Amino acid sequence: MSNNTYAIIGSGALGGFYGAKLQKAGIEVHFLLRSDYQHVQENGLIIESKDGDFTLPKVNAYNDTKKMPKCDVILVALKTTQNYLLPELLPPLVKENTVVLLLQNGLGAEPEIAKVVGEERVIGGVCNIASNKIGFGHIRHLDYSLIRIGKYVTNYQPTAITDKMKEIAQEVESAGVPINLTEDLLRERWKKLVWNIPYNSLSVILNSRTDEIMGDTNTRILVTEIMQEVLEGAKSCQSQIPDSYIQKMLDHTDKLRPYLTSMKIDYDKGRPLEIEAIIGNPLRMVNKAGVNLPKIAMLYQQLKFLDARNRQDI
Amino acid sequence: MSNNTYAIIGSGALGGFYGAKLQKAGIEVHFLLRSDYQHVQENGLIIESKDGDFTLPKVNAYNDTKKMPKCDVILVALKTTQNYLLPELLPPLVKENTVVLLLQNGLGAEPEIAKVVGEERVIGGVCNIASNKIGFGHIRHLDYSLIRIGKYVTNYQPTAITDKMKEIAQEVESAGVPINLTEDLLRERWKKLVWNIPYNSLSVILNSRTDEIMGDTNTRILVTEIMQEVLEGAKSCQSQIPDSYIQKMLDHTDKLRPYLTSMKIDYDKGRPLEIEAIIGNPLRMVNKAGVNLPKIAMLYQQLKFLDARNRQDI
Repeated sequence: MSNNTYAIIGSGALGGFYGAKLQKAGIEVHFLLRSDYQHVQENGLIIESKDGDFTLPKVNAYNDTKKMPKCDVILVALKTTQNYLLPELLPPLVKENTVVLLLQNGLGAEPEIAKVVGEERVIGGVCNIASNKIGFGHIRHLDYSLIRIGKYVTNYQPTAITDKMKEIAQEVESAGVPINLTEDLLRERWKKLVWNIPYNSLSVILNSRTDEIMGDTNTRILVTEIMQEVLEGAKSCQSQIPDSYIQKMLDHTDKLRPYLTSMKIDYDKGRPLEIEAIIGNPLRMVNKAGVNLPKIAMLYQQLKFLDARNRQDI
Repeated sequence: MSNNTYAIIGSGALGGFYGAKLQKAGIEVHFLLRSDYQHVQENGLIIESKDGDFTLPKVNAYNDTKKMPKCDVILVALKTTQNYLLPELLPPLVKENTVVLLLQNGLGAEPEIAKVVGEERVIGGVCNIASNKIGFGHIRHLDYSLIRIGKYVTNYQPTAITDKMKEIAQEVESAGVPINLTEDLLRERWKKLVWNIPYNSLSVILNSRTDEIMGDTNTRILVTEIMQEVLEGAKSCQSQIPDSYIQKMLDHTDKLRPYLTSMKIDYDKGRPLEIEAIIGNPLRMVNKAGVNLPKIAMLYQQLKFLDARNRQDI
């Protein structure tokens, strides 16, 4: 088995969980933290998980990437709104053969990071996970954990699965986290957007939970129509997603408990919203292909208004 | 000069103001009131107006149309959400040659009222007025007062100006209220919708005043795009509105003080919203003509969700 070391950039609900699982499996992990640094440095991490609770009393915690060792895999689990920090955070961690795995929402981060570390190092990924940070160094993992990763090359062209991806898959699986490898990263990103665009947007615009949106005839139809636009957008970027995927997402959402989306949580906390990654970048990619998505364009405008005002208020 | 008697159905900010102006000009007016009945019965009406304040210590006040005399002109100034009451309210007031003048927002009330009193009696009108009811029998008229009226015939076909309309115009003008007569009621209704659809909808959905909507680049563009859809919708119903009308409406709105739309005021008070008159009926008329207005359709769905939840909460 390979023996990669991992740096976790953004050790919150997502990065903290996956990093802890890897460390628990005996892999060397280094965590970059901000607000939790002091606490985690002294007390480690507590993971409550539906797959089994565990604690890591001692972890490698840092508040500066310049103090961290260079690693084989840099796992970026920041919100995309923090990506402006990466040109400074990443270079100190990079050595020969280091790869950067972007576990983030939306589209369009990979080409930006390719400019910083070189395209050959960039892998993208989407996560299907429900977890929250409920206190300093304290994460509650509620459901799912599947990761899907694909190599990034220019313009998100499909490309072969690399040996490094296979090594990562082995290590992640050894930590009890399911992982899929794909030759088509763009399609995975678009599939995730089928859910993320309607629910994240409407939860903020309509100040609502997913169950409220699904329980009203008008917004239930609206969600379906927005999903159809996402499929149309994906198609214009050569990502074919079957129509049946819409029903699958609706059924999945019907089964969720009353749920606040990540964008709604950010909004309620006055944090910047991931509007560009989740809506702006996909829209621009589709517009470049000559396709117009009127409903998603309007969601973008409404969210930009609300986000600007939300942060003005603080 | 003719000598019509007027019944005012809905003596609030709009009907109370116009009715008071008519009575002040010596015309016989009968007011139907609900919550204000007792007070107005005893104290009359107070009008604060930029055209001159006045009081009417004694008015003909009623709380039931069955107690009112039959009148020549029934001026309906209810919110369209109250129109379900009209089949009961109107018949006691109707005599030979009575006309019903619907001074209401949106589209689609006239054919409903035609079923109740006969199409030959129905006249529609739009008002350009800023006024508020600020207390029992107390109305503050801030700006404008122009009324535009047109005869209704099946499917809002253009039709000739009638003698009765000319009589009404004479009487309204004698009361110091400007009035225009039109052969094309439908076009007047669509022109009003160019303003009403974007601002009423977005003020509720985005919890905002008109100046906030106009002050943000994204929503300013969105307003323009929605107005373009309204023009497209009007065109599909044979109502031509020139593109320059959009700029006129934007300029007009820029000049308004920070302003809450009537739909936003209704929303904040937990009242039902005029969604069907202002958005639903125009959308259905346009869809029947085979045209799709995706942004306005989405506004409709968002508003229906918010309205349903708003009234659930009470």
